[in-house]
Amino acid sequence: MAFTKDDFKAKIENIQSQPWYKEPLGFGIARVDRGQLNKDKILQATYPVVNWKENFGSAAVFLNALKEAEVEVDTSKSEFVCSISDKFLTSCIETFRPYIPEAKGQEHKNVQVVSKLASLPIDSGFTADDYKIVFIFEDAAVESVETAYMKLYALSSGKAALRSLNLNGIFGTLPNCAWVGNQPIELEWLRENEITLKLTGKYPEITMVDKFPRFLSHIIPADNTRILETSKVRFGAQLAAGTTVMPGAAYVNFNAGTEGAVMVEGRISSSAKVGAGSDVGGGASILGVLSGTDGVPVTIGENTLLGANSCTGTTIGDGCILDAGVTILPGTKISLSEKAVAALKEINPGKEITTVMKGSDFQDINGVHFRVNSTNGQTIAMRSTREIKLNADLH
Amino acid sequence: MAFTKDDFKAKIENIQSQPWYKEPLGFGIARVDRGQLNKDKILQATYPVVNWKENFGSAAVFLNALKEAEVEVDTSKSEFVCSISDKFLTSCIETFRPYIPEAKGQEHKNVQVVSKLASLPIDSGFTADDYKIVFIFEDAAVESVETAYMKLYALSSGKAALRSLNLNGIFGTLPNCAWVGNQPIELEWLRENEITLKLTGKYPEITMVDKFPRFLSHIIPADNTRILETSKVRFGAQLAAGTTVMPGAAYVNFNAGTEGAVMVEGRISSSAKVGAGSDVGGGASILGVLSGTDGVPVTIGENTLLGANSCTGTTIGDGCILDAGVTILPGTKISLSEKAVAALKEINPGKEITTVMKGSDFQDINGVHFRVNSTNGQTIAMRSTREIKLNADLH
Amino acid sequence: MAFTKDDFKAKIENIQSQPWYKEPLGFGIARVDRGQLNKDKILQATYPVVNWKENFGSAAVFLNALKEAEVEVDTSKSEFVCSISDKFLTSCIETFRPYIPEAKGQEHKNVQVVSKLASLPIDSGFTADDYKIVFIFEDAAVESVETAYMKLYALSSGKAALRSLNLNGIFGTLPNCAWVGNQPIELEWLRENEITLKLTGKYPEITMVDKFPRFLSHIIPADNTRILETSKVRFGAQLAAGTTVMPGAAYVNFNAGTEGAVMVEGRISSSAKVGAGSDVGGGASILGVLSGTDGVPVTIGENTLLGANSCTGTTIGDGCILDAGVTILPGTKISLSEKAVAALKEINPGKEITTVMKGSDFQDINGVHFRVNSTNGQTIAMRSTREIKLNADLH
Repeated sequence: MAFTKDDFKAKIENIQSQPWYKEPLGFGIARVDRGQLNKDKILQATYPVVNWKENFGSAAVFLNALKEAEVEVDTSKSEFVCSISDKFLTSCIETFRPYIPEAKGQEHKNVQVVSKLASLPIDSGFTADDYKIVFIFEDAAVESVETAYMKLYALSSGKAALRSLNLNGIFGTLPNCAWVGNQPIELEWLRENEITLKLTGKYPEITMVDKFPRFLSHIIPADNTRILETSKVRFGAQLAAGTTVMPGAAYVNFNAGTEGAVMVEGRISSSAKVGAGSDVGGGASILGVLSGTDGVPVTIGENTLLGANSCTGTTIGDGCILDAGVTILPGTKISLSEKAVAALKEINPGKEITTVMKGSDFQDINGVHFRVNSTNGQTIAMRSTREIKLNADLH
Repeated sequence: MAFTKDDFKAKIENIQSQPWYKEPLGFGIARVDRGQLNKDKILQATYPVVNWKENFGSAAVFLNALKEAEVEVDTSKSEFVCSISDKFLTSCIETFRPYIPEAKGQEHKNVQVVSKLASLPIDSGFTADDYKIVFIFEDAAVESVETAYMKLYALSSGKAALRSLNLNGIFGTLPNCAWVGNQPIELEWLRENEITLKLTGKYPEITMVDKFPRFLSHIIPADNTRILETSKVRFGAQLAAGTTVMPGAAYVNFNAGTEGAVMVEGRISSSAKVGAGSDVGGGASILGVLSGTDGVPVTIGENTLLGANSCTGTTIGDGCILDAGVTILPGTKISLSEKAVAALKEINPGKEITTVMKGSDFQDINGVHFRVNSTNGQTIAMRSTREIKLNADLH
Repeated sequence: MAFTKDDFKAKIENIQSQPWYKEPLGFGIARVDRGQLNKDKILQATYPVVNWKENFGSAAVFLNALKEAEVEVDTSKSEFVCSISDKFLTSCIETFRPYIPEAKGQEHKNVQVVSKLASLPIDSGFTADDYKIVFIFEDAAVESVETAYMKLYALSSGKAALRSLNLNGIFGTLPNCAWVGNQPIELEWLRENEITLKLTGKYPEITMVDKFPRFLSHIIPADNTRILETSKVRFGAQLAAGTTVMPGAAYVNFNAGTEGAVMVEGRISSSAKVGAGSDVGGGASILGVLSGTDGVPVTIGENTLLGANSCTGTTIGDGCILDAGVTILPGTKISLSEKAVAALKEINPGKEITTVMKGSDFQDINGVHFRVNSTNGQTIAMRSTREIKLNADLH
């Protein structure tokens, strides 16, 4: 008798009512790259699909399949990772059966993943040990490369908000590797093979040495997003559709990025984020939590222009302008004329605005134009007189 | 009876006297990359040779060959693009016959192109549909990928002057692609194949996502030109021989570049150009028309030094110095001592020079040294006391 | 009768006592890349092992083997380069015999090199002419590509101190090439083959055009060193273990680098060096000797923070801070309060510290905080109130 979609739903409900079941925060199946010398060392985890607070039916299928494959899943821990097996795949396929015919394109991607895995030719060189099923049950410090990658996927795919995840332990967990394109290589393997590789002209073209891969090695951006050089965006960064990252001095670190179409020609440091319609000018620096802003993350509002070579170390509102070369740190003393105070109060009703303010006093003030008076070196703020609009051609 | 060079000349004259003949601004044969999913979508056009206001004999041969191949060429439009055919190639080869023996190296490149095309082995995998013959008759807004590329070639090869071409429509015409080396890929193709590519370890190394390719994917620079990182120069930029582009914060956008040997460690934004012997210091920003300078393109004169992290938003003359970190925007108020006024008047006879000037007042003034007085924050200008000479070793 | 380690030592002593023997500064065997058109032109030399003021026993073996292969070695010149031969290899192997069994991993690397060369299969495509034995006897101006590379190896491997080598002539000696990954290509070869390569879709992905290769094409960094983009570190740079080079505006030129764990987000120009625990902020510029500091190289002390977009053109001490956006050039006038003078004198006993100083006066002063007063534009110095500690997670 055929197993129908109704049967599927009933089965999922049954699984989810089991005492051992726990709804995961995130889950997915990853292909892993292992060390060339140390096969037990995971260097990278590549997920065709990451589920984040979604698709709990598939989670139930996967957890049940592990149980059927006689794997003990401890759902009381914050995360669970194990290799897949033929038994696991067979169980998944059986349960997913009613959805297999329509699992194509953007539909039923978890079904597509197990179907594809089950159909890999025997001589493909891959074994079940190359694939891991991964669950995050609680947003605790990361304890494995596989869950570190899952969190970076959640951020970079936009499924988790910037700054919303616990990334503690990630630097300690991810191994530092040499990368040849998308492929991580142990530095020790390079050392052991240096003489042979160099004498035979086979020394690889190493594009970087880092713990994190690049965004474009794992994420397909929106059609109107542009990244003019892959090294400029680290995996774990988030770029809203319409963002352009230029190849000059730009950089977007992990857990940092944009919340709308933004022109990025400067640095968005870890934990910093930039609102829709804003422009981070050539060489502009937005300081991050890892260094420079004492743990308070910086947010740049919408339609704000950070001029070329400006530097921002404190949160800035909407519709603001920092002139080229201007530096606003939390402690920067900024002078306002009486007229400027009045004009800014008009569009920021109820806000404390005075003739002398510090950089950190501007966190919720919109429409500010920050300048340095070139006749006396005074840093001043006034009402921004122009709207910041991006060139529509470029986004 | 042999077809001689005299016969060739007579034939060309005859073609050029036909009522349907029109002298093109530019023409050439391109190999095109098509969409992986949408074969009708042109992603890139690669020209072995671009003719720009030159080689009109070859233009006549090509136009005549199209006619003989029964293609309707509408020379009343601004551009014409069509696939080549065996008939077209046969006609070209027949007419070019007297030049074929000497078509080698730098000689008779259009002849080399058709000879090479005619000789491609049947099993090369290429078809006539992979090649386009392209004409631009008038410098109007671009309407096709093929003519967009031809104009970028004209700029990057130095055959057309910076800012001299109508590039309207280019952002709308060029498709945004993922690039694997020189190869453009539809983002949608990546999405459709993501699961299989990732599970089988074949996800490509994407070096960028952009509408424009890189300069070095299409242009061979002069022997004394250096580009230390390919992402730093966009196709459509122009680099005069002897220019060096460093890999730190440098970037040269399309329709921007250098007019002589220049050291580039900063940003030359779209529409900006820099004169011979000048030095764009590390992280220096020259603002462009696309954002920041309200449509007035910036020109930097010859032998001028833009110090590290300086920012220039207005045209600057010859032999000038901007100190490191100095910002000169069109509206920047700049103070000059009486002595400075006199010294600058001496080398700029007849020019309006006063004790208070704005940045935009310096457009045709040479030998100016811009500084910020570190005791009072005043932006000042004085007579530059040293000549700017590039280190000959580096160029 | 077996040739023992004692026999080896006696033989080395005997060689070293010969009148023709001279102890080299550096030596090694390189694989060379030759011009595609001009086979006599050396484009690159890749050393599996560079010996620098060390392993003189191996030097004696190599020099003796050349003599046995009837090669005239003129040890009175500053350098000697010649192709290897089977006779040379045979002689080396015979002398090294007692060490061959233990020549593995990090042990006896010169022995490994000759063993590997002797064992290359006949059909490997390599000939003796692809390998050169190279000696530097005296630190004079470089006269060959092979010795230029050896000196760059000595610097980048940390075997020679920054600024300690004579690099005169290096720009004239190294040919400017197009690079396809680690492979140098003559620009002229590209020109000669452009039409065919472009028409057949085989035009190579050129990653740069330069005289110098990249650091990562020749050097394996320490396990805790990170280089997030290969173009950011030129060959000839030196990075102490624990250094991180970010991909935004960073760049480390040849004969420049770090002397301990340093976070590099800015430019370390040629001849500049940075002490342990320091942080070169995003877009910060340290000026170099090739341009900008009139021949006096800049040293940054330990635990010093160069803020984002700061610019340093003069030597700075330990535990200093340059605020973001601050520029300190040798001639910058800097004001100090009486209190600041007293506080700085306390930790810099015996040093000349006054209320007005120039940037170049701070070369041996520690614990200085450089700022620009945002109310009056005055550049000031005070006692730095915080220690600069790097985030241990990042290094």
